[in-house]
Amino acid sequence: MFKIIKKSKIDRTRLGEIQTNHGTVKTPIFMPPGTQATVKAIGPDDLNKIGIEILLVNTLHLHLQPGENLINDLRGIHQFMGWSGPILSDSGGFQVWSFSKNRAKNGQNLAKISENGVEFFSPLDGSKHLITPEKSIEIQHKLGSDIIMAFDECSPNSNNKEYAKESMERTHRWAERSLKKHQELSKHYINNGKKPPLIFGIIQGGIFEDLRKESAKFITNLDFNGIALGGETIGYNMPKTLEILDYLQDLLPENKPRYTMGLGSSPYDIIEVVKRGVDMFDCVGPTRTARHGSLYNFESEFEKGCLRISNSRFKKDNGPIDENCDCYTCQNFSRAYLHHLYSVKESLYLRLATIHNLRFMMKLIKVLRNNI
Amino acid sequence: MFKIIKKSKIDRTRLGEIQTNHGTVKTPIFMPPGTQATVKAIGPDDLNKIGIEILLVNTLHLHLQPGENLINDLRGIHQFMGWSGPILSDSGGFQVWSFSKNRAKNGQNLAKISENGVEFFSPLDGSKHLITPEKSIEIQHKLGSDIIMAFDECSPNSNNKEYAKESMERTHRWAERSLKKHQELSKHYINNGKKPPLIFGIIQGGIFEDLRKESAKFITNLDFNGIALGGETIGYNMPKTLEILDYLQDLLPENKPRYTMGLGSSPYDIIEVVKRGVDMFDCVGPTRTARHGSLYNFESEFEKGCLRISNSRFKKDNGPIDENCDCYTCQNFSRAYLHHLYSVKESLYLRLATIHNLRFMMKLIKVLRNNI
Repeated sequence: MFKIIKKSKIDRTRLGEIQTNHGTVKTPIFMPPGTQATVKAIGPDDLNKIGIEILLVNTLHLHLQPGENLINDLRGIHQFMGWSGPILSDSGGFQVWSFSKNRAKNGQNLAKISENGVEFFSPLDGSKHLITPEKSIEIQHKLGSDIIMAFDECSPNSNNKEYAKESMERTHRWAERSLKKHQELSKHYINNGKKPPLIFGIIQGGIFEDLRKESAKFITNLDFNGIALGGETIGYNMPKTLEILDYLQDLLPENKPRYTMGLGSSPYDIIEVVKRGVDMFDCVGPTRTARHGSLYNFESEFEKGCLRISNSRFKKDNGPIDENCDCYTCQNFSRAYLHHLYSVKESLYLRLATIHNLRFMMKLIKVLRNNI
Repeated sequence: MFKIIKKSKIDRTRLGEIQTNHGTVKTPIFMPPGTQATVKAIGPDDLNKIGIEILLVNTLHLHLQPGENLINDLRGIHQFMGWSGPILSDSGGFQVWSFSKNRAKNGQNLAKISENGVEFFSPLDGSKHLITPEKSIEIQHKLGSDIIMAFDECSPNSNNKEYAKESMERTHRWAERSLKKHQELSKHYINNGKKPPLIFGIIQGGIFEDLRKESAKFITNLDFNGIALGGETIGYNMPKTLEILDYLQDLLPENKPRYTMGLGSSPYDIIEVVKRGVDMFDCVGPTRTARHGSLYNFESEFEKGCLRISNSRFKKDNGPIDENCDCYTCQNFSRAYLHHLYSVKESLYLRLATIHNLRFMMKLIKVLRNNI
């Protein structure tokens, strides 16, 4: 299901293709978040025009509302949200971690974690929920995702090695249980001449080299279709992320796609991990910062490659966000208009801003692919 | 600039065409509100796909933010908001009335009205503003609207005849001042071989037949390009509105377009006024109710031609809002998905809902045109 098309001669960058039930995903690829079965503020028509190739949806959000059974009854997540391209679902591990806002000082997660799974309270209505590895895989199968993730615990970016080890070992046992459940649920696809979804395993181990290596060996040894790097550290602590990618390089199989989860809050981060052989990444960064007024433009005058549209310098600026951008927003609207929409809190701003930042990401991806 | 193409043999319906600086407007026509230089929640791409032919923008909103001078410097309202079709601007009279939320019991408006104009406080920052007829016309010229409105006082739907008369007489004097200012500002268009915007006068007179008739005679006697019916009564008090249209029928010139301002909160209202020879109408109703969860569908099972998308009966309903609708929303998304988006407050809901209700209005307009 994964084919390497081309490899760089100067670094570890690689061009690949993943075959899914909803078409081929070219790698490297950025996957925008479609958390609640919609990429915030834009429609599938916009996604197609931007050139988005694969989306991510959140298992836990959809489990809580509207529920995987409803989506399954309505012919699956693609039909439900009007997106016919590939979809990856996360396992819910990260969401449980992010739902439990209050974390202990040693970095330990306050959602109640046991060997069986994670017990947590819904942020919607306070109701108690239990997600086990088996449950997570079942939800993802019911959603009808093309790529599903093993259930894991998102390990904190913390110095607590004892907890990192305990958590990693549990994640390993959950990986085996996830895979077993997946194989069980996949039988009826195979019996019906269909292909089951792909499943990716997740390497944990926090910030610790020995643990990360141990986790890499364990996870790559199982029959997963792809390998992800998880944990709060990935993307959030970029120096550590790059270090991890460097020391794990010989442990990651060549013939499986590699996915750094939650990475991409800055376009620079993506450039760095692609050079280190990463094929897939997702982040709420580009869409969230767009909504909050930061629009990508890499001209040197703008700090960190972002134009803050609320700045009064744009009030009378009739130019587009980025003169070289071919997105709908840059082709049709000025900075002055976006400044106005943002100031008066009109929802069209959210759409136009999101379109630009996502198009920026896709153009970056194209450049990275062409540079090999 | 106005041509009647066809007249009904069974009622007063008429098909017409208004020539503007940004193309021809076919009548009868519904004009969606683009209050703050955007039709809430949708873009010009959506407007084009829906088949919207002319928009309305609010003079007072744009005067307060971002200001008519800024828009003028940036080559006008069309360029600013990325809409190349015709635009009508209101005079600000209605907005002053709606900004001053607290009205005296006798229906008198609490914005400070004098012979010179209206003094009011900005709802944005409390700053004091004075809008005179001359100022309103100047703002509208600076915006670059295709159709501008004389400055008027929006008379209340009240029994206070004394006030209605006083207000109407002032509106008449303001109409003359508006026209004079318009003619003065129009000179440089004519000198440059260009056509100035069209200007419409507004008939007031509240709920009183003698006043409405007096106002109709006065306004139609001035050199306006079109005739509007204004006041809180129009659209808000539909029985009275229809009565007014009936007794004014012989006083309204055949060869000028007729515009009922703020009318169209229900599609039924539009059917009624078109039958009575009205050519143009605008209302926030279709877009506002869409955003608040009411989606047009005239199947008999739905109350008042609306489907309340929040209703749990739609939770698992895989059908479109309206099976016979050709809009982007109905062609691609289910009631269940819209119910979900509405429940989780995703902004894509606002866009999809607005697209449907506006497309419904435009289809209704087409039917009314074809029925002649």
